[in-house]
Formats: sequence, C-alpha cells, structure tokens
Amino acid sequence: MKTFSARMAHLGTENAFSVITKAKKFEKESGINLVYLQIGEPGFDAPENVKAATIKAVQDNQTHYTPTPGIPALREAVAQYHSKYSSTPYEAEDVVIVSGGKPVMFYMINALIDPNDEVIVPNPCYPIYESVTEYLGGKVVPIQLKEENGFNFTAEELETKITDKTKLIIINSPQNPTGGVIPKELMGQIAEIAKKHDLWVLSDEIYDQMVHDGEHVSITNFDGMPERTVILNGASKTYAMTGYRLGWGVTKNKQMAAYLEQLACNDTSCVNTMAQYAALEAVTSPDTKPAVQYMLSEYKKRRDLMVDLVNEIPGMTCHSPKGAFYLMANVRQILDKLGITAAELCDRIMREAHVLILPGTVFGQYGDDFVRFSYVSTEENIRKGLDKIKTFIESVY
Amino acid sequence: MKTFSARMAHLGTENAFSVITKAKKFEKESGINLVYLQIGEPGFDAPENVKAATIKAVQDNQTHYTPTPGIPALREAVAQYHSKYSSTPYEAEDVVIVSGGKPVMFYMINALIDPNDEVIVPNPCYPIYESVTEYLGGKVVPIQLKEENGFNFTAEELETKITDKTKLIIINSPQNPTGGVIPKELMGQIAEIAKKHDLWVLSDEIYDQMVHDGEHVSITNFDGMPERTVILNGASKTYAMTGYRLGWGVTKNKQMAAYLEQLACNDTSCVNTMAQYAALEAVTSPDTKPAVQYMLSEYKKRRDLMVDLVNEIPGMTCHSPKGAFYLMANVRQILDKLGITAAELCDRIMREAHVLILPGTVFGQYGDDFVRFSYVSTEENIRKGLDKIKTFIESVY
Repeated sequence: MKTFSARMAHLGTENAFSVITKAKKFEKESGINLVYLQIGEPGFDAPENVKAATIKAVQDNQTHYTPTPGIPALREAVAQYHSKYSSTPYEAEDVVIVSGGKPVMFYMINALIDPNDEVIVPNPCYPIYESVTEYLGGKVVPIQLKEENGFNFTAEELETKITDKTKLIIINSPQNPTGGVIPKELMGQIAEIAKKHDLWVLSDEIYDQMVHDGEHVSITNFDGMPERTVILNGASKTYAMTGYRLGWGVTKNKQMAAYLEQLACNDTSCVNTMAQYAALEAVTSPDTKPAVQYMLSEYKKRRDLMVDLVNEIPGMTCHSPKGAFYLMANVRQILDKLGITAAELCDRIMREAHVLILPGTVFGQYGDDFVRFSYVSTEENIRKGLDKIKTFIESVY
Repeated sequence: MKTFSARMAHLGTENAFSVITKAKKFEKESGINLVYLQIGEPGFDAPENVKAATIKAVQDNQTHYTPTPGIPALREAVAQYHSKYSSTPYEAEDVVIVSGGKPVMFYMINALIDPNDEVIVPNPCYPIYESVTEYLGGKVVPIQLKEENGFNFTAEELETKITDKTKLIIINSPQNPTGGVIPKELMGQIAEIAKKHDLWVLSDEIYDQMVHDGEHVSITNFDGMPERTVILNGASKTYAMTGYRLGWGVTKNKQMAAYLEQLACNDTSCVNTMAQYAALEAVTSPDTKPAVQYMLSEYKKRRDLMVDLVNEIPGMTCHSPKGAFYLMANVRQILDKLGITAAELCDRIMREAHVLILPGTVFGQYGDDFVRFSYVSTEENIRKGLDKIKTFIESVY
C-alpha cells in the first residue's frame, strides 16, 4: 500500500487509555477486579436539571444542525461566564463551541504552528499538547513543573526557554496531573513575558471551578491578554458532563476565532445539538449550582483523605493539591530502593496490589519521580485502594 | 501578532454556510421571508424510537466517556450494516465511530496526504474533500462529472488523471450535489484502476439508502477493495439525525483504522455518548425501518414533482436525479442570455424571486452551468419556490 503521511509518525496519544486497555486485559485473564484510582473523570453523574434539559431538547426536536460556532444563547452565556475573569468583557462572537476541550488544542495549534515553530509546554502535563505540536512539525520546549514550587515554573525559567522561534506558551491552571495552581503574581509575570515577546497563549482552564485553596486567576485578567489568548474550557469537568463532548474556545482575537470556526467547519460541522442545550442549562441555570457545590465539597473531602493516606505509605510523600482532582505522589525513594521506574511500579501495583494508578511519565519526562492518583472515586474506594497499596509497599520496601 | 500557520491560507470552507449568512442578512434588512430550497438536511425529525432511545440513555446516566472508537455494540452493528455491501465481512474492530461524516474525510486525508501528493476528486462535489487536501499541501486533481453521463466520469477519464504522485481517489455515490449514482460496471472499473495503481479510496456512502432508481453498489463489493478503502457513512442523512453528529469510518486496513482512532483521540476523545446509543437504536431496531421508508418515499415523490416543475421553467433543464436529495438544474442558456454567472443568478433569485438555491460553483469549477436545488422541503414549499422562480425567469428571459 502507498505510505501514510509523514506526520503520522509524530502523532502521540493519551497513554492513560492504553493503561486502561492493559488493566481490562489483566482483569479478564486473572478474574480479579481492580480498584480504579487513575480516572480523570468526575465521579458523579450530570446534574438532574441538565439531564432534564437534554431530554426536553430531544422532545423539542432539537436534533438538527446548528451554526458551526454554536447556538447564539450558549455562545452568549459562555462569553458572560468568562467575562468575570477577564480584563475585557467577552461577547458571543468571541466564543466557538466545539466537541470537547481537546478540539480547542487541536484547532489552535493547527492554526499557529508550522514546522520548527517552538511551543513552550509545562511538564509533566496533559500529553495532547505535545502530541499535536509534534504532529505538525513543531518543536516542544518542555518547562519543568517543580514540586518544591507547588508544581509551578518561575518567570525566570520561562524567560530562558524563549527563542525567536517561540510562538506559543501553553498554561494549565488548575493543573492536570499535578493539582498545581498558578498564583496571581506568577500569572501576571507570564502575561508580561507573553506581551514582551509577542507570544500566543493557550490557557487551559478546564478545571477553573476546582480550586480547593486560593482562587482561580485567568491570564485574561491582565491587560492586553484576551487578544493573544485562547481560553480552553467546557462542560466536562465542572458539570460532570464528559460524555456530552462539549467544550469551547474563547478569544478576543477575531482572526483566531474565525480560524477556530473554520477548522471546526472542516472537521465536525457543529456540536451535538442536544448537548448545546444541556450546556446552556448547565452554565446559566441557578439549579446547577447546588450540584456543582456538592461535587466540589466532596472532592475537597476526598482530597484531604487521600493526602493523609498517601503520606502514611512508606517512601511515598505528597503535598496537598490546590486544584483539579489529581494528586501527584513522590515515589522516588521507592523507585530507587527497588531499582524500577514509575511505570514498572504502577504495573506491580496493578498486578500485586490490584489498584490502577498512572506513572507520572505518562505526562512527560519530568513526571519520572511520581505516580498520579485521582480523587474522584468514592471515599470507600479511596480507603480500599490506598490500604492495598500500603500493604504492598510495606511488603517490598 | 505572530503569524498564523502557512496551512491556514489553503483551508477552504463549506460555502453553502456563507450563502445562508447572506440570506439571513437579506431577510433581516428586507423583512421578506425566503423560500429555502438549498438545504442539505433531511426535512424530517429523527424517528420517535431513536428519540426514545436518546432519552433512555440520558436517564440511564450514559453521560460519561466511552472508548475513543465507540461503544462495542454500535461498532458491531455498523460492521454488520456494511458487510451486506462488501466482498469481505466487516468486524467491530474495523469501525471507528466519529463526530459526523466530515471527520472521516478530515482524518483519512490527514493520515495519507503529504505536500504534493495528488488526490483525484470528482467535480462538482462536496467542497471539504478539496479543502482538507489543499490545507495539507496536497494537490487536488479534479475529474469532471458530466451531465450527459448521469453525472459520472468514465474509467478512461480516470486513467488519464493518475500520475506517480496519485495516492487517493475520492468517490461519492449517491452523489452530492448532482444526485448521480455510480453504476456497478463503472464501480468495478474504478476498483480495478485503484488496485492496478495501488491507490487508496475514500468512498463517501452517506446517501447509500437514498437510491430512487437502481441500487447502491459499494466499491467494497469488489475483491481486494475493503483493505484499501475507507467507507464514510453515518446517521445524519438516512435517519434524519444531523444534529446528533454521529458518523463512522470503516476499513479492513488495520493501520488505517488505528490511525483514524488515534486522530480521533487527539481531536475529540470520543463521540457524544447519548448519540451513540441513539445511533445503535437507529441502525439495529426494526422500529426505525417504517420511518426511513416513509422518508424515502416522500423524497422520491418530491423529486418527481421538482423535476417536472424545473423543466417547465424557460431555459432551465434537468434529468431526474437517481439518488441523494439534490437536483442539479442546467441554467447555461439563462446565464448566456443574461450574461451572468451561476452565483449572480442565485443572488438575483434570492433578491427578486425570494427563493434560496445554490450556484453549482459552490461545488467546484465544473458546476458553472448549474444551480443546485434540494428536494427535502415540503411539497407546498417546493411548489411555491419553483413558481416564484418561474415567474422571475419568465420576466427576464
């Protein structure tokens, strides 16, 4: 057969999915049920009022195409939502509704990156930023998120990464996989650097509502930033609506907004119509708030429980994550003592302790001291999983 | 600001959408309501049993992520569906569920085309094939669909278009915008040519159920083709489910299937979960059949009515389209007499006859003798629209 395109060799994937495949295979072959503490998905169902709005949309025959960038009411609601964090109010025309958070990355990086352009990407971080950049021939410049800095980089470290080929910085606060949150002062410094070097910013704010300590600060809060930033956000995490596949890109840069829409038109035409009405309910209805508040308070309780339990395991330490629903535990001592990698440790924890967690290296080279837990699971599951891991580590450490 | 990627300058769009924008502006400014005879969307709502299955999925909290290539039951159902047209039975693993028909084009062309690779694309045809090819630096080689051949090209014409850079042929039967259907003999000749020159085929079969005269023949019916073909199909047209955004790519080439899945993972993660359960109902339930049969019989009646009415207009002629729900009317005589283009004629028909139709040139250079009607609208609307156009043409012709 004639060859595939050269780009395909550079496309990565979300390795968390291949871990699940391996886990399912293990369960099938062994007959053992694993405790899942790796999943990046809210541990709740969508709020009842959102489900009711979905059903009403179906009954109302909202099953036809919509305009590519979304129904006007949802674009308007999202604009208002992000205006509260921004130095400049957003309007409906600044919003493009897309099929999840990932298309915002996919389209923005497509719109910007030519071969040899450089993109500064935090590390460890969500792997798709790197994957799409390298797919298009761009160069990923990793910047380490250091545990001792609350999983942040410093402004000085950022300055040293910039060259005349740098076109884009990607930031993600609250952060997956570390739970780190970029404080206001550092966010202001990043904004200054972006303006000084005329850089674009992809600001992944998908966990914006999940700040357990402190506050969410968007880089668009700083003057001059809404014009050079695309905000990535969506319904998946805040409203437990992952299966709806509804996200959005928001930018004051009119050409960028037009290009996001044009790429969406070439790719998916528009987003599932019922999901748009469901998201409109989620974003605008006061009925959503209690459900979101309940989920947030549960995540915080589960976080505190998990932090305590992780720190009781010999050789394992963690700080309390400030946001999102992930916890990075430092396992360097265990790895050195056993002479294995984080991936090998997670594999042994799956096979011998029967708990699924992810090695930090799934999120990049600087994740090599860590394993990632998520605390979306029930309190019972968290206790059970951590107890199994503790027993296992005590037996080998 | 730093520049956008060089590729963006080569990305096209679906110009049918900009015509709608112009029409909405005209309606707002003039206070006149247009008759819409341009739309490429079924004129019916989704079947009741499909809507019921959607609602049940929401009630069952099927609102979480699914595997990237789709829920196993839907992949299996789609495999069975396409096996009836194929020389080799398909299996679930040959199917990738994606967010509409367009992602199949987008992903397959991404997976194959490097700069200067050539893609043979029928013309006039759906504009996104060209747009994505040129976006990636590929070269579009148009092959004319001739009215006198039932809007088909011949095997001899196809042979002359092939060079050592040809990697992919795109075929679409039944065809948008012409309503042409590729007969079995020609399909077999295309298959032989593809095998002889080791070419990939994108077979857009989205209108496969809408054959009013004759039968649908898939190129995968011919030996050796399922391994070099990706079938594009989906729920939008057959089941009137456009707003669900659910389509699929089907191929016996394992590496291609893996690449389609990998691109989907980098783009949208998975398809809206409720839509997957709805599509499963649509494809497998006997309750869907009467609704589909009713829609098909209505389309056929409306087609026959429209053919008669178009041929009563001075200077306008058309053959009876064999499939899909489009009709290309030859308006060359009118264009020559008035000294205008097809786009200018459609603009005048909008402003002076108050009916919206599309110039054939929206679908490529070889559409310049034509205007496209769709016959999804009600009989009343079709009569009203064609009457207005007739009165207008009689006044200027």
